[in-house]
Amino acid sequence: MAAAVITRLVRMVRWEPGASARLRAAAMDLYVSRGFDGTTAADIAQAAGLTERTFFRHFADKREVLFDGQNLMQQAFLDGVAAAPREASALELVASGLSAVATFFPDERRDYSRRRQTIIAENPALQERELLKLAVLATAVAAALRARGIPEPTATLAAQSGVTVFGVTFGVWIAESSERSFDDIQRDMLQELVAMTAGVPS
Amino acid sequence: MAAAVITRLVRMVRWEPGASARLRAAAMDLYVSRGFDGTTAADIAQAAGLTERTFFRHFADKREVLFDGQNLMQQAFLDGVAAAPREASALELVASGLSAVATFFPDERRDYSRRRQTIIAENPALQERELLKLAVLATAVAAALRARGIPEPTATLAAQSGVTVFGVTFGVWIAESSERSFDDIQRDMLQELVAMTAGVPS
Repeated sequence: MAAAVITRLVRMVRWEPGASARLRAAAMDLYVSRGFDGTTAADIAQAAGLTERTFFRHFADKREVLFDGQNLMQQAFLDGVAAAPREASALELVASGLSAVATFFPDERRDYSRRRQTIIAENPALQERELLKLAVLATAVAAALRARGIPEPTATLAAQSGVTVFGVTFGVWIAESSERSFDDIQRDMLQELVAMTAGVPS
Repeated sequence: MAAAVITRLVRMVRWEPGASARLRAAAMDLYVSRGFDGTTAADIAQAAGLTERTFFRHFADKREVLFDGQNLMQQAFLDGVAAAPREASALELVASGLSAVATFFPDERRDYSRRRQTIIAENPALQERELLKLAVLATAVAAALRARGIPEPTATLAAQSGVTVFGVTFGVWIAESSERSFDDIQRDMLQELVAMTAGVPS
């Protein structure tokens, strides 16, 4: 009994259950109300009822609160590429990756994504970080396509096109009037890309 | 005669002939030898035999030495879009813009572009700036396409694809072994994009 209590206490000290989610929620509220620049890691920790040390156990800095999801999203994209059938073309590999990414954006996430985008749109440094993360994503996808036997420059063109489709989809998905699912919009955008490039320029 | 001498003196004080080119050359040498972070605007001005004030008449900051060409390049892209025939498709408008951009990269510029790319590749902040400039370019091209009657999302997809083709072309063009002209490579890359998207994914 005493051992169980001690174990529980140790766990409470070492690991705050749901700390990451609480920190993220507190951060988003503060970024909206005070602005990103006007918020410190200490403010976020305090608002979440946690210590600054706990904040830094979960996030490298206050920017990472907004961007840590992108690493998981990138892994989903790469897993989707890996799951495509053996004979898949470059575009089919990318489409498979995009389908996997769509599972990251269920309708319940739309409000969070909108708020996040508003915060980023107001801060040029965050915009640059977002662009860099997307460039890293495109580079990782191109490497995955090469590993599946797609030669350059096709691998890079296909990977960049996939990130373009993702970006345009995201913009439509968070638009106020949008009610369609991420996956539905993304399939349409991929078809639009295909239709757009169908006419070979003279 | 005295008036002519005074006019010349005034001109020398107010306007250093070739100052911009001298500052750029001095900056590139210093960025390579000392690194971008280890170079100040004062260092560049001194190496060019000019005052710091002259530097700031030509460039907003030391980063702009590397990026001011992109504004001209963007204007060339937009002029190319505007010059396309009335009935041009989205992809043809983009192809026309890309052809205009190619005139900015004659073979004589290849060495400069290589050195510039080496400097940028070593500095994450410069990479982010480069990505931001390309994102601004894509946004401007999409607006130009909409002005030519191309609807969304086609306009953004086509504009982003154009920037992708430009980026991949640039990478091939500055590769050590490359001997082909920018325009030749770019036409091939556009065809590769068309071929890559030809297979509609299942």
